Amino acid sequence: MARIVMKFGGTSVADLDRIRNVAQRVKREVDAGNQVAVVVSAMSGVTNQLVKYCTDLSPLHDAREYDAVVATGEQVTSGLLAIELQRLGTDARSWQGWQIPIQTDDAFGKARIDGIDGSALLASLNAGQVAVVAGFQGVAPGNRVATLGRGGSDTSAVALAAALKAERCDIYTDVDGVYTTDPRIVPKARKLAKISYEEMLELASVGAKVLQTRSVELAMNERVRVQVLSSFQDIPGGDIPGTMVVDEDEIVEKQNVSGVAYSRDDAKMTVRHIKDRPGIAATIFGALAAANVNVDMIVQNLGADGTTDMTFTVGKADLPRAHEALGAIQSDIGYTDLLEDPDVAKISVVGVGMRSHAGIANTMFRALADKGINIQVISTSEIKVSVLIAAEYTELAVRALHTAYGLDAA
Amino acid sequence: MARIVMKFGGTSVADLDRIRNVAQRVKREVDAGNQVAVVVSAMSGVTNQLVKYCTDLSPLHDAREYDAVVATGEQVTSGLLAIELQRLGTDARSWQGWQIPIQTDDAFGKARIDGIDGSALLASLNAGQVAVVAGFQGVAPGNRVATLGRGGSDTSAVALAAALKAERCDIYTDVDGVYTTDPRIVPKARKLAKISYEEMLELASVGAKVLQTRSVELAMNERVRVQVLSSFQDIPGGDIPGTMVVDEDEIVEKQNVSGVAYSRDDAKMTVRHIKDRPGIAATIFGALAAANVNVDMIVQNLGADGTTDMTFTVGKADLPRAHEALGAIQSDIGYTDLLEDPDVAKISVVGVGMRSHAGIANTMFRALADKGINIQVISTSEIKVSVLIAAEYTELAVRALHTAYGLDAA
Repeated sequence: MARIVMKFGGTSVADLDRIRNVAQRVKREVDAGNQVAVVVSAMSGVTNQLVKYCTDLSPLHDAREYDAVVATGEQVTSGLLAIELQRLGTDARSWQGWQIPIQTDDAFGKARIDGIDGSALLASLNAGQVAVVAGFQGVAPGNRVATLGRGGSDTSAVALAAALKAERCDIYTDVDGVYTTDPRIVPKARKLAKISYEEMLELASVGAKVLQTRSVELAMNERVRVQVLSSFQDIPGGDIPGTMVVDEDEIVEKQNVSGVAYSRDDAKMTVRHIKDRPGIAATIFGALAAANVNVDMIVQNLGADGTTDMTFTVGKADLPRAHEALGAIQSDIGYTDLLEDPDVAKISVVGVGMRSHAGIANTMFRALADKGINIQVISTSEIKVSVLIAAEYTELAVRALHTAYGLDAA
Repeated sequence: MARIVMKFGGTSVADLDRIRNVAQRVKREVDAGNQVAVVVSAMSGVTNQLVKYCTDLSPLHDAREYDAVVATGEQVTSGLLAIELQRLGTDARSWQGWQIPIQTDDAFGKARIDGIDGSALLASLNAGQVAVVAGFQGVAPGNRVATLGRGGSDTSAVALAAALKAERCDIYTDVDGVYTTDPRIVPKARKLAKISYEEMLELASVGAKVLQTRSVELAMNERVRVQVLSSFQDIPGGDIPGTMVVDEDEIVEKQNVSGVAYSRDDAKMTVRHIKDRPGIAATIFGALAAANVNVDMIVQNLGADGTTDMTFTVGKADLPRAHEALGAIQSDIGYTDLLEDPDVAKISVVGVGMRSHAGIANTMFRALADKGINIQVISTSEIKVSVLIAAEYTELAVRALHTAYGLDAA
């Protein structure tokens, strides 16, 4: 007997038929002798409607009231799934965040979980009852309902798995696992049986949006084994195994490169001909931080004339704010031009094997050069190499790298 | 400065525009210096959708889960109204049943309020904040959400008014008050400025469905002054006064008859030629009670042959169950025929003045006789006379009685 947490996202509980399907999956685990806590999202579309109500009334609505309104979506699904499980003869009850309780901080609308008292849930599980938990929410100091922000149901599930010391946390979604790259670009992409937390985090940060980043961080910190799998596919008698997100130590055959990711969400900015003196970088990035602009890749070139160029990437949506912030400090830092290019893509190769293998980056540069793709910026972390290229080469670059690292399926 | 409770039903908060309208009404009371607690229903249609989800999944759903699902409708409205009030610059916050708390019993789906701890609400009101309370719900033992059943928001409002010792409880609805009779039948019907609890209860029991019966009982027991008024009409600077439901002592000029009501919800049954011996009535009505059939008017006639006929009314929907229950005891009580007539109407005249005036019933019988309307059954209470007639005469009878008691508007 194992204790497991199962989490179903909005498309997995989109309507009553999908909720019936979810109940069958839960019942299968219960019938196999497992203790099961289920975390559910709102039926798809419901949260958007509730958000629209709040925003239509007032763009500057009170986050506490927004949370009280929006959290109802998950509450509905949890009650409905409990009803369907009971109809199937599987004992079940719904739990709202305040009933457990799932304690959060008071950052309404994007709250963080401070702690979960698992005792009531454990008593219910030990009595053979399925716990159907409304995801995405908890209760903040002052007894107010707080939501965890978009994607928060993944975090609810992982936090619950940690509190219940569950053997694993199965995240059911509309994809059947984590792939070596986007199968829409590379048909030969392969589903990974296992991936490490660190790799998953790097992939999430470059646009592979299978799991919400915070949930992966939490899983890594709490050592929760997470499985990503599909609620839309099935084999007789069970789920098709998805991808296990686990500790690096669990992965025996470490690949040099586990996956190739891409993101078109960034824009490149170049500040030209800055006087090269100490504190310039602090002035630029301080101004951007003050304008709430996140900066990602940074490269600085020293010119022959004693001035310097600073190139970096920001989120495309932040470009106008970044432009304004840098305009305001032009006289301070004395640059000549501010270049902006939104037509760029970031391509990344990720793999824990990089730590112990040389030449990973060089393989990347060589493969891109062979296709005539120019590299504009490079950045690296311990387990990732990222390059910025012209956006039009995205698919070509991803395919070339997938082949170069031997990731293509046979 | 007064403390008031305002309650808005589903049609009054049907969409965002209606919610904006409600916020203006609330703000007007606040700006006049009043402390205000608002009780809201779900946006119209929402509760029906949530009920349908539960019923579609399982007709025999767990009432606790049904309540968790259905209670979300009011929670959404309370958050949205708080947002809109804040936008208008009026401090406000939403309250769910468990946050106050409103304690109920564990009769999920039709729970009764056991008690309201008004201290947190009072602190909020005293701090100048409007309390926007999700109606129709509370928290049952075991920390589960419980709903009060259909119409429960009226009861929430009255109970809250009692707990907060409010000066009055304004129930906004889609009619503008209580009338001497149905204005669709009698265009000369007049809106009553005041009506007593007892009269309101009698009117409610005969089909004038302005207020839910339980809420009127509670108002009477707790001496809460209730005003019924429209959220769809307005005059510059204020509401059009509705009808105050108050203690009899507050009504100086007591009318002999305050209103004429009718109901077509009943059916007549006659059990013929029963042997006239002790215990027969107990057998008949015991069998009906066991079948969960409510019996209203009862009349017994002794025939010349030593047998008796028993005539009574039951709810039309209960007719098949009543038929079955009486069929099962035919051999016990030995009746010859069971007659059933669903084409009947109950016409009632109601007025606290009846207590001190004779001849009220006689005026009724005379007025009906003048129109050639045959009376099938008569029943009376302290402040009500009801007659059963053929349904086709309903409008004629109501108009005749309205005129006979001098209720027609000038």
